[in-house]
Amino acid sequence: MEKMLDVLFHETLKDIYYAERRILKSLTRLARGAQSPDLQAAFRTHREETQGQIERLQQVFEIIGKRPQGKTCEAIDGILAEGEEMLETFTGQPALDAGLVSSAQAVEHYEITRYGTLKAWAEALGLPEAAALLDQTLQEEIRTDQSMSRLAEKSLNSIAMAAE
Amino acid sequence: MEKMLDVLFHETLKDIYYAERRILKSLTRLARGAQSPDLQAAFRTHREETQGQIERLQQVFEIIGKRPQGKTCEAIDGILAEGEEMLETFTGQPALDAGLVSSAQAVEHYEITRYGTLKAWAEALGLPEAAALLDQTLQEEIRTDQSMSRLAEKSLNSIAMAAE
Repeated sequence: MEKMLDVLFHETLKDIYYAERRILKSLTRLARGAQSPDLQAAFRTHREETQGQIERLQQVFEIIGKRPQGKTCEAIDGILAEGEEMLETFTGQPALDAGLVSSAQAVEHYEITRYGTLKAWAEALGLPEAAALLDQTLQEEIRTDQSMSRLAEKSLNSIAMAAE
Repeated sequence: MEKMLDVLFHETLKDIYYAERRILKSLTRLARGAQSPDLQAAFRTHREETQGQIERLQQVFEIIGKRPQGKTCEAIDGILAEGEEMLETFTGQPALDAGLVSSAQAVEHYEITRYGTLKAWAEALGLPEAAALLDQTLQEEIRTDQSMSRLAEKSLNSIAMAAE
């Protein structure tokens, strides 16, 4: 069952490990930049979760007998660059939070797809413990995306109020 | 309700318009690179769908009275660069298709998050026709992601067979 799937798994693990550490830094800036206290709190909570997700990845590296190591992930660099641009362009505008939530959801979806894949590969590689760790994070990401959707609605309501 | 949400909507529309045209080119290469005929066919089908999605975006530009125009989307550039890397690294290996499906799903998830946001913003901006067009594409992307998940399972089975 190996035949390079183990290589693919290890490479993708390095990709998401790099991504999570970049996300951690970015969430600090997003929490500082967001306008509504609700969104600030959501970013802070997700920052704490991200810390736990990084620790889980370190456990997965240990399971496969590798040193935790990141590898530049151009996808997350691009996604986060768009979020930073949002922060620069819309600071002080009523639409800022709507833009920040959309950026955060792009990050969530990247994580959801990567953890979904990694979990399936861990199962195929006969690594049930690793699969369980990856699934724990996957479920957290799905919940975060759902709570972001609720915050997205709120952000639209507050734009409507600002326009009155 | 405007107050820059219209600007945010227009900017994000340009972002996904650029992304869809890049995806169109990339799908041609993916269809050529994939090993299994099923996956080749899936990429070709999604290529045709993408063509229709680009046309829908052009209609949305028309609805808001703007010329269809793209804007460099660093996120999709990064996501597609990872897919190209996969193609280069794993060509000829049994794990190639599993890697290509994972890349395609990262693309799908980027589209799902962007179309979900754009649809919500179109509704908030009082553009029901635009919202309906964006929702049509959103539903297509969700279905494509689901069919990719089924192909992911198949790709893992074929690695298992190659390893026997």
